[in-house]
Amino acid sequence: MKQYDALKQEAYEANMQLPKLGLVLFTFGNVSVADRSNKVFAIKPSGVPYENLNPKKMVIVDFDAKIIEGQLRPSSDTKTHAILYKYWEGINSIVHTHSTYATAWAQSQLDIPILGTTHADHTTSVIPCAPPMSDDMIKRDYETETGYQIINCFTERKLDPSETEMMLVGNHAPFTWGATSHKAVYNAAVLEEVAKMAYLTLQINSAAPSLKSTLINKHYERKHGPDSYYGQ
Amino acid sequence: MKQYDALKQEAYEANMQLPKLGLVLFTFGNVSVADRSNKVFAIKPSGVPYENLNPKKMVIVDFDAKIIEGQLRPSSDTKTHAILYKYWEGINSIVHTHSTYATAWAQSQLDIPILGTTHADHTTSVIPCAPPMSDDMIKRDYETETGYQIINCFTERKLDPSETEMMLVGNHAPFTWGATSHKAVYNAAVLEEVAKMAYLTLQINSAAPSLKSTLINKHYERKHGPDSYYGQ
Amino acid sequence: MKQYDALKQEAYEANMQLPKLGLVLFTFGNVSVADRSNKVFAIKPSGVPYENLNPKKMVIVDFDAKIIEGQLRPSSDTKTHAILYKYWEGINSIVHTHSTYATAWAQSQLDIPILGTTHADHTTSVIPCAPPMSDDMIKRDYETETGYQIINCFTERKLDPSETEMMLVGNHAPFTWGATSHKAVYNAAVLEEVAKMAYLTLQINSAAPSLKSTLINKHYERKHGPDSYYGQ
Amino acid sequence: MKQYDALKQEAYEANMQLPKLGLVLFTFGNVSVADRSNKVFAIKPSGVPYENLNPKKMVIVDFDAKIIEGQLRPSSDTKTHAILYKYWEGINSIVHTHSTYATAWAQSQLDIPILGTTHADHTTSVIPCAPPMSDDMIKRDYETETGYQIINCFTERKLDPSETEMMLVGNHAPFTWGATSHKAVYNAAVLEEVAKMAYLTLQINSAAPSLKSTLINKHYERKHGPDSYYGQ
Repeated sequence: MKQYDALKQEAYEANMQLPKLGLVLFTFGNVSVADRSNKVFAIKPSGVPYENLNPKKMVIVDFDAKIIEGQLRPSSDTKTHAILYKYWEGINSIVHTHSTYATAWAQSQLDIPILGTTHADHTTSVIPCAPPMSDDMIKRDYETETGYQIINCFTERKLDPSETEMMLVGNHAPFTWGATSHKAVYNAAVLEEVAKMAYLTLQINSAAPSLKSTLINKHYERKHGPDSYYGQ
Repeated sequence: MKQYDALKQEAYEANMQLPKLGLVLFTFGNVSVADRSNKVFAIKPSGVPYENLNPKKMVIVDFDAKIIEGQLRPSSDTKTHAILYKYWEGINSIVHTHSTYATAWAQSQLDIPILGTTHADHTTSVIPCAPPMSDDMIKRDYETETGYQIINCFTERKLDPSETEMMLVGNHAPFTWGATSHKAVYNAAVLEEVAKMAYLTLQINSAAPSLKSTLINKHYERKHGPDSYYGQ
Repeated sequence: MKQYDALKQEAYEANMQLPKLGLVLFTFGNVSVADRSNKVFAIKPSGVPYENLNPKKMVIVDFDAKIIEGQLRPSSDTKTHAILYKYWEGINSIVHTHSTYATAWAQSQLDIPILGTTHADHTTSVIPCAPPMSDDMIKRDYETETGYQIINCFTERKLDPSETEMMLVGNHAPFTWGATSHKAVYNAAVLEEVAKMAYLTLQINSAAPSLKSTLINKHYERKHGPDSYYGQ
Repeated sequence: MKQYDALKQEAYEANMQLPKLGLVLFTFGNVSVADRSNKVFAIKPSGVPYENLNPKKMVIVDFDAKIIEGQLRPSSDTKTHAILYKYWEGINSIVHTHSTYATAWAQSQLDIPILGTTHADHTTSVIPCAPPMSDDMIKRDYETETGYQIINCFTERKLDPSETEMMLVGNHAPFTWGATSHKAVYNAAVLEEVAKMAYLTLQINSAAPSLKSTLINKHYERKHGPDSYYGQ
């Protein structure tokens, strides 16, 4: 068995979850999975339909986005993934989709407010929407700069990427991540559902208040705190 | 056959209806079923994906939420179920989901108004939305207090839990129940549909009036009154 | 073969289309099919889940709603069907559902305006919404009076039930019909789609104008007029 | 093998994608595929349900809409297809649907604004909505005039049909096209998704600004420009 076969297999399986969960139309999404010991990640090849994917088609790339192994061109978003792995050491998998409701929030250029416990079960923060990128950034190395835009957004807002594992790039679409590929894909589906619920809530009551901090903390901590009691 | 095998089987089957009816994403929901003669109930284990469930994984708990039988930790919402069984003697099954439209109404902190016969076929009341819990309640025993919040809401509004078998906890999500697990799950699906219809109705006509009392009573009584003539 | 076996078979098959087309939750709908030579119709039994239906369970009823053949109680809406068959001689099948978007319009108590060719392909009129029934009518024979409410709505508006084969009962839900069971069920699905499109159109542009009469007539006549050229 | 068998097969397969992608209810759509060397195209027969289609039922028509081969009457929209093939030499396949969100925009008589990169990945322009046709046009040869309405819209707005491969006919529904049948069908699904996202975006934030030109050009060119780097 070759060195990266298991990594490619995991990346393949994670990518195949996106159409199954209804998060992508055609090829509008990609998942990568990192091998931190070798400082590389496996990512979906660019523009290949999900029904034609197999583990061998995954591309191995290092954290400078240099291709290490693979016959196909990697996702056009590869440099964004590379930057995030390079700067955020706690994450091991990244998901990018254009899922419908999360993308609508990104296009609206608004943070997704924290309106209920479904949201607070996953993060204590709003889902941040980074502003659209500056013309300078767009004209430089666009995908690399998209990575910096994401990181700058978290730095400026003092958010921790291991606590808030999802965000929106304004005018563009969502990115999620996690310590495992399972968690990163899970987060992509949760974000889409939270985005839909927030949309509906504000349609029903445009003055719906944010969740109060006691409830935010209670729900987050019962799932994630040192005294968590959710799960097995 | 062990004492609680049939109860576990019923709880398992009822839980498996939730993903089939589109009411849950991942593990966002749980069903319990009570055995009143033994003052216990069977409930889903916490955080276990539906595809990994089986009847043996159900947990048997008494009405003080003490584990009677089972290898796994029960749902983190177990104490809420226990309180409801303890105080509401007519109910034998409880369902909690984060279904999309019902949760959006809970997040909006508004009762679902009674706008049509689909609603009146199931209850003569609005679907009540309990206010978000006080900071004191949240900091005490959160899940037990959630049970009291539900009961207090019904007491204050003079609602009968055997007539109105569904409600929303503000900022959180819906709870439904019934005399049987079949009815409790049925109610969870009906609530989601009624929540969606009410949302759409008010988007189409924000001044849509409530159903008049003659029509409410007619529809409720043809299904539930002493002279009901619906069903076999 | 018994006298009404073919009629029961047709009614069974038409009823089974409702869940397949996504028009019903649980038992919220029914189809009947008439045999005009014998002045009877076959209709779904009341409250029986679709998965438990079979042709033998259909109930044969005459146009005064008297049961002619069948072991089960017929749909609680049977008298409404009977009145429509009695007064509208051109129709041979009736469908009643609580499909989501059409029911939301019924709850909003508004006609569905004619906003595009998808609507005009099926009727030149708005989809009329009859007002909620008077208290007197509700307290009399409710289901019979529902039939009269539908007929009165068409009479007052000078609509022809063989041209406009769909309508809404205010606060309640849609009824559709046709010369065949295939057409009546088809109309139920078309109404739901037209209701959804009209809802979305007015959300996008609350001032969207009605279709002009030249376009209404062109589309209706290319499908239904004496010089129609749609279909084979 | 007969001369047009391969063309009919391709048209059949492309038509069958429409229900699979959720773009049509019943028979509300059609795909044609051109053979430019023989100046003909294959198109779906009128009003035939998708489940009854087969390649032999496709109709071969020339660019003046004269039937060349086939037992069935071609789609009632055939003349619209013929006009587009005649005047727009770069296109080899045309799709017409009444897909829900795109049709709602057509009924609202508004262009779909360019609000995000999902849109800009496919065209740098708004999705144009041609005005409803004049009474004169409707009364003349309606389907031929629909073709001219589409072409006039592109001419007046100086749009290039090989760059913007989708549009709306006001009050009616969408048309898409492409260099291949695969691309034309792909565009129909993309349009529906972009229409849904734009609708949701403006519901969330009615003041959501259009995408800025640097981002429009970046996204379009990474997929379509001379230095494109998307796909294999």
